[in-house]
Amino acid sequence: MKVSTFDLNDFEKAADPLLVGEVMSVLSAMPLYVKKSDQAGKQGRLIFDPVGANAHLEKKLIRRKWASKVPIPKAQQALGTDVDFGKSGHLVEVQFSNYPFFLNNVIRTNVLFANKTELDGMGRIVAAMIVTKAKLFEASNSTLYYEQAMEQTRFLVGGKTVAVPLRVIGLMADRGTTISSILTHYHTPRYSRTVVHQDRIQVQVGDEDSHLERPLLKQV
Amino acid sequence: MKVSTFDLNDFEKAADPLLVGEVMSVLSAMPLYVKKSDQAGKQGRLIFDPVGANAHLEKKLIRRKWASKVPIPKAQQALGTDVDFGKSGHLVEVQFSNYPFFLNNVIRTNVLFANKTELDGMGRIVAAMIVTKAKLFEASNSTLYYEQAMEQTRFLVGGKTVAVPLRVIGLMADRGTTISSILTHYHTPRYSRTVVHQDRIQVQVGDEDSHLERPLLKQV
Repeated sequence: MKVSTFDLNDFEKAADPLLVGEVMSVLSAMPLYVKKSDQAGKQGRLIFDPVGANAHLEKKLIRRKWASKVPIPKAQQALGTDVDFGKSGHLVEVQFSNYPFFLNNVIRTNVLFANKTELDGMGRIVAAMIVTKAKLFEASNSTLYYEQAMEQTRFLVGGKTVAVPLRVIGLMADRGTTISSILTHYHTPRYSRTVVHQDRIQVQVGDEDSHLERPLLKQV
Repeated sequence: MKVSTFDLNDFEKAADPLLVGEVMSVLSAMPLYVKKSDQAGKQGRLIFDPVGANAHLEKKLIRRKWASKVPIPKAQQALGTDVDFGKSGHLVEVQFSNYPFFLNNVIRTNVLFANKTELDGMGRIVAAMIVTKAKLFEASNSTLYYEQAMEQTRFLVGGKTVAVPLRVIGLMADRGTTISSILTHYHTPRYSRTVVHQDRIQVQVGDEDSHLERPLLKQV
């Protein structure tokens, strides 16, 4: 997929370009994961599939020796019990869920960074990456999108509330283009993680002349 | 209602005791607001009623000349467009909603404090209070409770992420006691804010010998 980034607190100075490169290349090579919506008003329409995308990233990052579900020490679990991925001080969170969880990820990461907390299998945080999806992908209601994440991050930086070197990553697409995609059919439409089968398809992100903020994702 | 507090960043030094007293006395004089649950597993049971409690606090604080729904300047709306109540630099948020919104309130307040943002009708933030409810009240699933708010706040303080003088307030009760309550019947059970009618009732918070984390709220 196409990828955009937004860096702060000298991310590029703090981070190891080899480790950042591993993450960026996994994201660039990833197909678009879609599923059919079950929500009122968009039933049957193709929407971004967080379960499929998460499973893909987990497989690819574990293969590159990133630790997954890295536990947070018991005394510091107020904002969650584990982080998604880590390797040599580099933390990756994948956040396709409801929008308030982005702030949770940023602040939790910042506190663990400020506390110099030792995390199992990855050590102290030196830099963090949070993966999001762009607004233009149709998705479940109230899920976080990249543009919103950027706006929140800018607000925090203005308020000097966050010190951790951070890259916010947005999975993107150009309008009117066709993207290699994987359509997953789940056992039950909305919450199931049980895959029934997957089809490799081509998805067009809106028409060339579409000016909708969220163009239709059409199988072509 | 019975009230507990958890202060940080020299709240008592920063805040005006008269203004804090206004808030604390409104909370102490408030009845317990309850409604009948419509959620699976606790259908028909009495649970904490955030809509009734919010409406009560709004009425009482506005009467004491607190500004309500204070707008946040356009450039700083990444984490929301307004704050609940304000008066002479003292901000009050009432947070009975899903738990991730507590962090949103704390961080937003901290950034507005750090930025010395001028808020309409209340000026710059000098101290903030966030009102929550204790865990022992039966409530809608995933709603914030005081003990969780305290734990999150402690985590943030450890990480030096929050500088605003802050009081976290928990609406409380003693187990086995009876509390003056208002039972509101809404037009539709779950999401409606349209009141059909209200009854003054007495509610007992569990039995004396109950050791449940969340004892039954029983009409007596």
